[in-house]
Amino acid sequence: MSDQGFILWFTGLSGSGKSTLAGRVAPLLRERGVKVEILDGDEVRENLSKGLTFSKEDRDVNVRRIAFVADLLARNGVCAMTAAISPYRAIREEARSKSRAPFVEVFVDAPLAVVESRDVKGLYKKARAGEIPHFTGVHDPYEPPLRPEVVVRTGEESPEQSAAKIVEHLRLRGLVR
Amino acid sequence: MSDQGFILWFTGLSGSGKSTLAGRVAPLLRERGVKVEILDGDEVRENLSKGLTFSKEDRDVNVRRIAFVADLLARNGVCAMTAAISPYRAIREEARSKSRAPFVEVFVDAPLAVVESRDVKGLYKKARAGEIPHFTGVHDPYEPPLRPEVVVRTGEESPEQSAAKIVEHLRLRGLVR
Repeated sequence: MSDQGFILWFTGLSGSGKSTLAGRVAPLLRERGVKVEILDGDEVRENLSKGLTFSKEDRDVNVRRIAFVADLLARNGVCAMTAAISPYRAIREEARSKSRAPFVEVFVDAPLAVVESRDVKGLYKKARAGEIPHFTGVHDPYEPPLRPEVVVRTGEESPEQSAAKIVEHLRLRGLVR
Repeated sequence: MSDQGFILWFTGLSGSGKSTLAGRVAPLLRERGVKVEILDGDEVRENLSKGLTFSKEDRDVNVRRIAFVADLLARNGVCAMTAAISPYRAIREEARSKSRAPFVEVFVDAPLAVVESRDVKGLYKKARAGEIPHFTGVHDPYEPPLRPEVVVRTGEESPEQSAAKIVEHLRLRGLVR
């Protein structure tokens, strides 16, 4: 069982809690004998996509690279968690269709008003001030998934509750013990 | 034992036989229970580095990306084989030092005269005609490894002989059965 890799694809607005949640789920999976790698949006930009902008075209390239690496890991028995905004539905669907391992999309659903009022990294303020172009939710669209495997509402649930929902889904799917 | 990942880093001139050799070694490792992924130079360019040129700077970026992915795989129990020319010693050494898994450098040592006379893909001819810039061995240097773990001489040995040398090294190192 622990040899069955899969992709856990988090998608949601900046500040919705994707990375936090991936960080909560990881130890829960590791204690079930699953190998885990988190492909965080910022880390991937640094290592695989330096120089790319946040235009739709460049975002798509970035997300394709994340999908390529996640698939390599997942087909070798790893749970590859991706935590990039990945705002465009078509590219997420492409990632799903190209994956040779099970693909679990987690929609981290927090209203723009909530994440903007928190503004943990101060990015929304900068985006509204015109200092960051192409900011998802401010200038550019976020296309929510139509049929995500899991929806977590980080504006209402605690991180523990959201993480538990994800693990329960994986257990019911037979992907973890 | 099959959970011990490592990086098998092939380096050598274009046409020296890196990909051929990786393709020969892969089934020998799989039959010993090792998971294998081959990160071929062309495939990586397509999936991770589209748009990069063959300038020294861009090659270094490309090789760093290969090293990042190879390390992710190796630390999760996979034998990650890389088969890019990777002509610059400093970046190969960087890849080695950043790897969290054993790093085995295989110098595919074929004289320029030999690979150029074979010219399997017709690239040397184009490079000499000025149609391909920055071609390693023609315009740009190839810096051979100083202390590679394995040296194979594909101008003199058969692919079977070279592959056997590599597997024997891995066996002696305790990386495969």
